[in-house]
Amino acid sequence: MSFGQMKISFLGTAGSKPTPERNPSCIAISYGRDVILFDCGEGCQKQMLRKVRQSRIRRVFISHFHGDHYLGLPGLMMTMSLNGRTDPIEIYGPKGTLEFIKAMLMSGYMDISYDVKVKELSSDKLQFNGYSIQSFPVDHGVPSLGFIFLEDPKRGSFDTRKARELGIEGEMFSKLENEGELILDGKTIKLEDVTQNRKKGRRVTYSGDTRPIDFPMETKGSDILIHEATFLNDEERGDTYHSTVGEACEAATHIGAKTLILTHINSRYNDIEIMERAKDRFDNVMVAEDLMEIEL
Amino acid sequence: MSFGQMKISFLGTAGSKPTPERNPSCIAISYGRDVILFDCGEGCQKQMLRKVRQSRIRRVFISHFHGDHYLGLPGLMMTMSLNGRTDPIEIYGPKGTLEFIKAMLMSGYMDISYDVKVKELSSDKLQFNGYSIQSFPVDHGVPSLGFIFLEDPKRGSFDTRKARELGIEGEMFSKLENEGELILDGKTIKLEDVTQNRKKGRRVTYSGDTRPIDFPMETKGSDILIHEATFLNDEERGDTYHSTVGEACEAATHIGAKTLILTHINSRYNDIEIMERAKDRFDNVMVAEDLMEIEL
Repeated sequence: MSFGQMKISFLGTAGSKPTPERNPSCIAISYGRDVILFDCGEGCQKQMLRKVRQSRIRRVFISHFHGDHYLGLPGLMMTMSLNGRTDPIEIYGPKGTLEFIKAMLMSGYMDISYDVKVKELSSDKLQFNGYSIQSFPVDHGVPSLGFIFLEDPKRGSFDTRKARELGIEGEMFSKLENEGELILDGKTIKLEDVTQNRKKGRRVTYSGDTRPIDFPMETKGSDILIHEATFLNDEERGDTYHSTVGEACEAATHIGAKTLILTHINSRYNDIEIMERAKDRFDNVMVAEDLMEIEL
Repeated sequence: MSFGQMKISFLGTAGSKPTPERNPSCIAISYGRDVILFDCGEGCQKQMLRKVRQSRIRRVFISHFHGDHYLGLPGLMMTMSLNGRTDPIEIYGPKGTLEFIKAMLMSGYMDISYDVKVKELSSDKLQFNGYSIQSFPVDHGVPSLGFIFLEDPKRGSFDTRKARELGIEGEMFSKLENEGELILDGKTIKLEDVTQNRKKGRRVTYSGDTRPIDFPMETKGSDILIHEATFLNDEERGDTYHSTVGEACEAATHIGAKTLILTHINSRYNDIEIMERAKDRFDNVMVAEDLMEIEL
């Protein structure tokens, strides 16, 4: 993919237990040349063979350390070694991540050929090349996070009339673009002086596993909200730390998401029941399927 | 399955890395009401949904602790808990198993609802209900085992002529069968006095991952030898601790196996190449496929 292209690949969409059709949780966002994983359930390395270039995975964000959200990580890391990887991998997760990863790497002969960088997050914002990832605590009984993928705002198009007034012409445009400013007749001209307003970047929010929460400000206007929907109704949910289909729809309404994608699908339901429950509650909603892909 | 019925289910037949068609190593033997796993690669719990009743798994034998042979175990154990299992599970493996399992259970929030019994083996024979499992060391660079499934010998049929001579009749047959002996006119008569020679039970040998070794005596005459065949020839094998297709065939010849099943199939080969190499070297040979089953 070229710079700025963006794709979401659903590699695992099951609830706590896999089904013949669904693997445990794993979502890959491909952005330009980077692949970022959100959760890494058992079997995700096999799913990747069909959809995602494993060598492009730069960083993995684990929402929490229940088995269905991380048990694909050691096998993925082992295969990366077998493939001769030398690029470091970054692993992010909630409080406890460092100890858990240490134990994981001691569960067998894990001969890792590259550096493993682990960082524990709470409410944090990490800036990468062209995008940032913001983490926020969610309510799941154990330390757990949700994540927002925030593409950097893009500069507006050149305002050619304004540029001409200021004397910008020819190669000066690319100098401005590359360096952000230039000096003309002793006067500093900045890129934003001759471009229209910056455009908001694309935004994808992933809830992880959680009871209903107040989503942070930065989730507002998400292009996509990927929300767990483990149960159909309150009675079935009981006092587990999960959300119902209705609550996922309310969250999407509340943050003004353009599209809602339901995931963490309980083996006891079929898609039709879930859509039946969701369709009157939020307009633009779909149920995630394994190997489904969305280009933004 | 009723008592005495026996089935081998190949749940994972890949080499070190999964392919779209093959999961990492896992073989289930169903014997009567017991299911025994040999290795437990990533994704085996999902494969089981199609072939094996997970609740019947009594014991797991791990050949060695490279990731492709054990990384399905924590997910399987977690799902067993979610399914409310209370029966203990037995885990057997080579030296180091206890520490590895401890680390595995500390790699996340693994809330296990049943007892986990771990035992390290070397050259051991364990007796169970109707069968025993014998372990033997193999040559794989790290502590590694192969295993033999040995069905108990069965009593021969009643020799009715001999029985009549000794005065055995009517309900005395079932008393003999159940109690092994009875006293008639002050004289002890044993079951084997009135039955023909015992019949050898069925026998299945699994090599685990290994360079060529001398297989123990007890593997002689195996009905099935499941042998790794990671490489096509010596050059490709190099100095790795694996076997070639030819070496697997030699092992089968050497122990007089009736059938050879090649597994741990390297992603770089296709079945035709492997069969091409094997077919002149051993008569009754096949390449394992995921979800293949064999009834004995």
